Amino acid sequence: MSQPPLITLTTDYGDASPYASVLKGVILSVNPAARVLDLSHRVRPQDLRHASYFLATAVPYFPPGTIHVCVVDPGVGSDRAALYAEAGGQRLVGPDNGVFTGVFHRAGGPSLVRELVDRRFWRAEVSDTFHGRDVFAPVAAHLGLGVDPAELGPECSKPVLLPSRTAVTFGDRWRGEIQFVDDFGNLITNVPAQGVQSLPVRVSFGDEQSRSVRWVRTYSDAAPGELVCLFSSDGFFEVAEVNGNAAERLGVRDGVEVEIEAE
Amino acid sequence: MSQPPLITLTTDYGDASPYASVLKGVILSVNPAARVLDLSHRVRPQDLRHASYFLATAVPYFPPGTIHVCVVDPGVGSDRAALYAEAGGQRLVGPDNGVFTGVFHRAGGPSLVRELVDRRFWRAEVSDTFHGRDVFAPVAAHLGLGVDPAELGPECSKPVLLPSRTAVTFGDRWRGEIQFVDDFGNLITNVPAQGVQSLPVRVSFGDEQSRSVRWVRTYSDAAPGELVCLFSSDGFFEVAEVNGNAAERLGVRDGVEVEIEAE
Amino acid sequence: MSQPPLITLTTDYGDASPYASVLKGVILSVNPAARVLDLSHRVRPQDLRHASYFLATAVPYFPPGTIHVCVVDPGVGSDRAALYAEAGGQRLVGPDNGVFTGVFHRAGGPSLVRELVDRRFWRAEVSDTFHGRDVFAPVAAHLGLGVDPAELGPECSKPVLLPSRTAVTFGDRWRGEIQFVDDFGNLITNVPAQGVQSLPVRVSFGDEQSRSVRWVRTYSDAAPGELVCLFSSDGFFEVAEVNGNAAERLGVRDGVEVEIEAE
Repeated sequence: MSQPPLITLTTDYGDASPYASVLKGVILSVNPAARVLDLSHRVRPQDLRHASYFLATAVPYFPPGTIHVCVVDPGVGSDRAALYAEAGGQRLVGPDNGVFTGVFHRAGGPSLVRELVDRRFWRAEVSDTFHGRDVFAPVAAHLGLGVDPAELGPECSKPVLLPSRTAVTFGDRWRGEIQFVDDFGNLITNVPAQGVQSLPVRVSFGDEQSRSVRWVRTYSDAAPGELVCLFSSDGFFEVAEVNGNAAERLGVRDGVEVEIEAE
Repeated sequence: MSQPPLITLTTDYGDASPYASVLKGVILSVNPAARVLDLSHRVRPQDLRHASYFLATAVPYFPPGTIHVCVVDPGVGSDRAALYAEAGGQRLVGPDNGVFTGVFHRAGGPSLVRELVDRRFWRAEVSDTFHGRDVFAPVAAHLGLGVDPAELGPECSKPVLLPSRTAVTFGDRWRGEIQFVDDFGNLITNVPAQGVQSLPVRVSFGDEQSRSVRWVRTYSDAAPGELVCLFSSDGFFEVAEVNGNAAERLGVRDGVEVEIEAE
Repeated sequence: MSQPPLITLTTDYGDASPYASVLKGVILSVNPAARVLDLSHRVRPQDLRHASYFLATAVPYFPPGTIHVCVVDPGVGSDRAALYAEAGGQRLVGPDNGVFTGVFHRAGGPSLVRELVDRRFWRAEVSDTFHGRDVFAPVAAHLGLGVDPAELGPECSKPVLLPSRTAVTFGDRWRGEIQFVDDFGNLITNVPAQGVQSLPVRVSFGDEQSRSVRWVRTYSDAAPGELVCLFSSDGFFEVAEVNGNAAERLGVRDGVEVEIEAE
């Protein structure tokens, strides 16, 4: 049986502000059958890399055809474009500022990108500061009603991508960065764990001295408080403090450089 | 096709406590078809003005007939009344303590207010401290089942309203207050931006010296870190720090007086 | 009319991480009709007692047959078992580490416990650190599709239970502990309020001196800032600061001993 359309929301609006609720109201007013699902409203304010990582990790698990609205949009009201895109079978709606970089990357590139220009699918009045309400939410709702993406606007050949930060390796050394610090304080780097895996390693973040860190298969293989490294759940080199917060302990955050060397 | 009833929740219960989940369980036990939607559980504890602003901003966007439960209820278990109200086509359930002031105001007043007294629509046992669970959630669920509001209790002619705080203007000066600080730290005043708009302005909060603040159309019209003023997304005079947090920078919060003058 | 299956999520994943969204995607991919409901993703990291209290309080309010997934799982990837359980008409999926202790206790014990071993209902590849995604979410989704619990794995006769902490009484004295500090800072002890109720009391937490605390029926029976005691909404002895945060004021948290004596 066909299901009502599924529309997810990812924003930096926070929980105490009414903005995310406004999106829900707008979507349901256009498309009362839509199933609206919160992913997060706690992307760090204006943090495009956080949004990109979040979506890259979560979006691929959804049923094909799911509509994902992302509004992390410091350039709202400027001349930045607004996008509809398809990648890996998922449908994406949001600003053309790089928030979908990670999704595109993991899907091997978008299969379709259109610029949102047809105002029939927007709210009648469009503010300069709240395109989530006035453009992205109504477009997503209309897509859920079956609007053909070709109606939204022309194809866009060069969506904005965030600068790629690829980890590099020189023999027994890897250099990359922390791409995400999760709510546990675990440090997810951008270094594929596969390559590093079998070695005893020394790890350093930023300018600090390197330290020996033990490889484990899972957190409970070490004692509470021990700093360990392991495969993250999406295959990256991860550093964690067992039952603790590695980010606080080491005083690091995402974007900090990491260097790993065989011991 | 008729949709199952939509019931939204707005509370100050927080995210780590089970209370909001209890409401969901109660609603779904009475009305298994209901679609329950979180608006926020992060209204500041007991903050009626926060609740009122939040609802006034979010509620009007929902489809007519949506049922909105609000439980910010410092007077729970006292002799404060419990209400069902209709305003602007929306249906409201909550304590009679002013949380719906903003919704009423924007809708030009409620079209119907009833006091909840008929215990047939409550849980069998009613605690003194958790009317969200025992009164408001089950009433909302019954409304969703089609119960006639007239059955809930008698009409209420004077629902409690929060003191109105209207901005005033004297020629080229406006005096009002910060009515909301959003999660970005943007300061949404209660001064209609329309009147102020065209002028270069000086702004002061509380007792501080006034400062010149530049009008912009949207955030990205100024450099990161600049303090700007603009139309909020609901038409009020707003002060923001581009890519920053104006509330932290200026050390202000909602309720603080604002004075704006033409430069 | 039969409703689509209801699946709730309770985790310690936090709001800024993609993990809870991944669970939603996995569930909906297996079972596109499922209704997925957030209970909380703000259980304190690895805090089994918090999870147990949260679930014990919230779960019994849901319609019978609701499927509750709980992932607070410091032992993920170790030899701890994974469980399906039924208690009080509710269906539970999660690690065998005691998170369901409270639900079992309030239901008078589980009516069925099975160990999850049949990998047909898991994701094809199972990581060492993310069984929420790879085991619990897909099992819940399959249960929602009508899979017979007997297919999940063999019965488990001794699910792990957290150490029971029962309050004790000696004449006019009670000794117990704070079992939960809610988001208001209210202190919910494990002492049944019924026994204490009628007396003027002195209360002490931890090693501090006892103080006289006034019994009230509800918060608004005392002035803002007053420390009061009352029946919690689930019948325990509670200490609260009216319109304030008792936990911050007294510098206590859950697990701290409480002693109550008739004055």
